[in-house]
Amino acid sequence: MWAMKTLNVDLGNRSYPIHIGSGLLERPELLRPVLRGQRLVVVTNETVAPLYGDRLRALLDGHPLTWIELPDGERHKTLATVESILTRMLEARLDRGSTLIAFGGGVVGDIAGFAAAIYQRGIDFVQVPTTLLSQVDSSVGGKTGVNHPLGKNMIGAFHQPRVVVIDTDTLRTLPVRELRAGVAEIIKYGLIQDAEFFAWLEEHLEALLALAPDIVSEAIQRSCVCKAEVVASDERESGRRAILNLGHTFGHAIEAGMGYGRWLHGEAVGTGMAMAARMSEHMGWLSRSDRERAERLLARAGLELHPPAELTAERFRDLMAIDKKVMDGRLRLVLLRGIGSAVVTGEFTATALSATLPAPSGDSAGAA
Amino acid sequence: MWAMKTLNVDLGNRSYPIHIGSGLLERPELLRPVLRGQRLVVVTNETVAPLYGDRLRALLDGHPLTWIELPDGERHKTLATVESILTRMLEARLDRGSTLIAFGGGVVGDIAGFAAAIYQRGIDFVQVPTTLLSQVDSSVGGKTGVNHPLGKNMIGAFHQPRVVVIDTDTLRTLPVRELRAGVAEIIKYGLIQDAEFFAWLEEHLEALLALAPDIVSEAIQRSCVCKAEVVASDERESGRRAILNLGHTFGHAIEAGMGYGRWLHGEAVGTGMAMAARMSEHMGWLSRSDRERAERLLARAGLELHPPAELTAERFRDLMAIDKKVMDGRLRLVLLRGIGSAVVTGEFTATALSATLPAPSGDSAGAA
Repeated sequence: MWAMKTLNVDLGNRSYPIHIGSGLLERPELLRPVLRGQRLVVVTNETVAPLYGDRLRALLDGHPLTWIELPDGERHKTLATVESILTRMLEARLDRGSTLIAFGGGVVGDIAGFAAAIYQRGIDFVQVPTTLLSQVDSSVGGKTGVNHPLGKNMIGAFHQPRVVVIDTDTLRTLPVRELRAGVAEIIKYGLIQDAEFFAWLEEHLEALLALAPDIVSEAIQRSCVCKAEVVASDERESGRRAILNLGHTFGHAIEAGMGYGRWLHGEAVGTGMAMAARMSEHMGWLSRSDRERAERLLARAGLELHPPAELTAERFRDLMAIDKKVMDGRLRLVLLRGIGSAVVTGEFTATALSATLPAPSGDSAGAA
Repeated sequence: MWAMKTLNVDLGNRSYPIHIGSGLLERPELLRPVLRGQRLVVVTNETVAPLYGDRLRALLDGHPLTWIELPDGERHKTLATVESILTRMLEARLDRGSTLIAFGGGVVGDIAGFAAAIYQRGIDFVQVPTTLLSQVDSSVGGKTGVNHPLGKNMIGAFHQPRVVVIDTDTLRTLPVRELRAGVAEIIKYGLIQDAEFFAWLEEHLEALLALAPDIVSEAIQRSCVCKAEVVASDERESGRRAILNLGHTFGHAIEAGMGYGRWLHGEAVGTGMAMAARMSEHMGWLSRSDRERAERLLARAGLELHPPAELTAERFRDLMAIDKKVMDGRLRLVLLRGIGSAVVTGEFTATALSATLPAPSGDSAGAA
């Protein structure tokens, strides 16, 4: 039996706790300290609501609830969906003292968090993430937002939750693809800053995929510690926080290029990390054996090591040019200096990038 | 000849200067310290651009510019307009190091500031307000946002500009209705917290309306000092900042009830302040002679003292119920305890409110 663990994300007057454990959806005392007003709005989706909606309703018993169910999937992560939420909130006369509860995976959290950030210029919100990926990544750190047809997460805000409640029981109904997508982000923490955690994952990966309770809880906890530590050192991503984007520039290009929703975010990041590892080896920054360790662990998690054949190098370059890490027109990437050591840099060679992108399909290729 | 004055809005690491004076659109050195990246986006409108666009282009000479002209008017202050700006910015490949320049009145500033707040989770922006109202009000304090069909300014963010440049020369082309709307907000500062400024306005109102240079600059400067001081004490409006909303709850109801754009914001606030003064007298908080002073000064500025006949008391109550100052379902209003002294309170009598709203039109009236 794994007891509840509580971490604190240290952000001055925006600090908040993350509670991790089994059965937490039956513990109303975890939410009580942050529910200032009586009125609550729950934003969830059509997949999560039938599975765990009753538990959340019971947890919030006594509060007037506005219950909003979104269609499931990344392709609904749009400004139009946010607007529909804001309309429902206004119709329900929710005021600035109301609290929004995001109940679902990363897509729900990003959309709902952004709605909370801009409703009446910002109201409190709570994250109750129900997928592995959202539990280890998107529910920690305050990034909220939606996609634009021209780029992923291009519209958004930094808005910290008041509390994050992670009930690991919700993972039991998670499809295997989603599980693997979450494991990709867990592997990321090992790669970017915790070689010891990476080695622990090499030892426990199959148990993690099999949802062995102690292993799952420990993996989530160590991931959240990693992320909370990076976020606390650089809340608004003026520097170091960008290392959390290992694999994301390549990954976002895959997601956008294939059409949002066809590849899961974590799946695309997994492939992006394999690409970043190979590019780091090309730069002479990562040893061959460490590149192989990275690829091997990603493969064991069921992740693709290579981007889909439909995406050409040209399309990659085009999609990567609007990455948020671009500064004054210059692309920057997160690369590895070793297992457990990432850098954000624009100092890479055109050759290394070209070698990492798919081989050109014809004569027109090769523009730097 | 009025020299340039510079005020500082004190908000820790979000502090910024406000420069006020004549000819400031010819002084590039005022912007230079804050333009980190090379790429700039200017958001202006179809009225301001033909008049002063060339001056701004000359001021920004040497920077690659994305130039966005919005249609003029409050009815375009919508999320759809913000989305169109974000699309243009993405098409131009603007990155996080880019700076947005809001060039126009309050509507342009609110829309453009909000676009800056949510583009890639926030980029720098600069306010160059060109109307009296935006110079004394909306360009100071970091409130950005747009309207929703169900309520004014219901969608938005707090996002502080890096610098505000107020060139008083732009007032020479301002229509008289807009001038009066700006004077309404100037009178507001006297009413809420500066009895001495109120008395100064009683002395100089006609010179202000005639745009006597020294009087205009002094009025803007004193207004910005007032506002900056209130904002610095309560950036996110958890308390005292709400006094800046004197006349706004009634005023927003007038704007929304009449259809955005028919009444100018400042005109509606002027009428709302007269209503608040009468209600304060009903409560026994404002003397008859002070209520008369308030009404007299507003009337001299050409503002209406009474709401339009089309708006019933029932419609007022309905529109006021979604005001952002509502807390846990309870309406709060800004009322006067004297000239120069405002309070935010839910402690008013139903009788005083009823007496302030238009007389009921028939039998169905009187619901509290």
